[in-house]
Amino acid sequence: MTALNRFPELGVPDRAALDALLDSQWAGVLSCAVDGEPLAVPMLYARDGDRILLHGSTGAGALRHVATGASAVLTVFTLDALVVAPTTFESSVNYRSATVRGRLDTVEDRERALDLFSDEIIPGRIDEVRRPSRRELAATEVLSLPIAEGSWLLKVASGWPATPEEAGADPAVWSGVVPVRRVLDQPVPAPWASDLAVPPSVRSLLDQRGTTDGPGPD
Amino acid sequence: MTALNRFPELGVPDRAALDALLDSQWAGVLSCAVDGEPLAVPMLYARDGDRILLHGSTGAGALRHVATGASAVLTVFTLDALVVAPTTFESSVNYRSATVRGRLDTVEDRERALDLFSDEIIPGRIDEVRRPSRRELAATEVLSLPIAEGSWLLKVASGWPATPEEAGADPAVWSGVVPVRRVLDQPVPAPWASDLAVPPSVRSLLDQRGTTDGPGPD
Repeated sequence: MTALNRFPELGVPDRAALDALLDSQWAGVLSCAVDGEPLAVPMLYARDGDRILLHGSTGAGALRHVATGASAVLTVFTLDALVVAPTTFESSVNYRSATVRGRLDTVEDRERALDLFSDEIIPGRIDEVRRPSRRELAATEVLSLPIAEGSWLLKVASGWPATPEEAGADPAVWSGVVPVRRVLDQPVPAPWASDLAVPPSVRSLLDQRGTTDGPGPD
Repeated sequence: MTALNRFPELGVPDRAALDALLDSQWAGVLSCAVDGEPLAVPMLYARDGDRILLHGSTGAGALRHVATGASAVLTVFTLDALVVAPTTFESSVNYRSATVRGRLDTVEDRERALDLFSDEIIPGRIDEVRRPSRRELAATEVLSLPIAEGSWLLKVASGWPATPEEAGADPAVWSGVVPVRRVLDQPVPAPWASDLAVPPSVRSLLDQRGTTDGPGPD
């Protein structure tokens, strides 16, 4: 662990790190300005190369106000640790956040988008279920936001808190970090699926993303 | 677990549930409109009764563009489960989200605000460290956002996915939910604090908020 990044707002110009953050999260907040007022909607997203696909369902309200061509910002945030400093003033959190700014566009290839969203939630699930119907594709609304050079900002706060000397604090006061982590618990079958085996897609996701001995059968 | 809430966008008019969500999270996204363009900043917050305090440091950039009196929306989102449906179209996530809309105000009592923020991150920590200095208080910027009736929206998506019958899917396909949970790992002392005991505030936080056997020395 390195020293605390004291100026996370300056940003980290590392596209691979941006992609890694975006790919590790499921949801973000889409912000737009409508008639001079801010509009904010939490949304699922999936990165598709140099663009981000945003998922909604037609008429669901979330996207109703957001026209194609609207200027938007997607914010993705993850908290990595609580930073326990030797003073309250220096106490903070370690985090990574990304803002991607651009104009929204509609996505015509909804079938591909639906596959990407499915893979974003449960990789490999598309091989276990039927293909989307024409009616389902018609009811799926997908917007895209480009990831263009100069249009995104990755902020990273990491490392240790200020030292007792830097903080002007008692050196006998403990300080350090408390890592924060998101884990998946054991899957819980729907009532009608309790006799069925947990499918490979779900099992391999749990193998990869940190299962714990939390609640749930199996 | 109840049936999936099919219309989470209609909102849940339950102030206690709103407070519970706000109190369970550390950060949100503050959205404003500046000259017709959306501005979004992830921020730490702490609820203080009927208002939300937002934390920044003067000159840190985050709050520079947001004037007192500006119309803002704070969005707080937590993902509770992956919903594995019998079709990709019905696949989704269970979540809770809150949007609180209002005008920002400055907070004069910065000492109280700093205490609240400290308690938000590590309850009880203020008893283990020195009081903030005058210089630290001067460098702390705090904004408040009122939680007023009609100005907030709590959305909750919970429960099971669509049944195979509802989804028009093969009843032999497994479906269910995969719970998602945020846990705190064992604290990691800063290099200069490795000989000090982990303080009561950190120990009791770990007792309450789901320690796991993750990385980090004891």
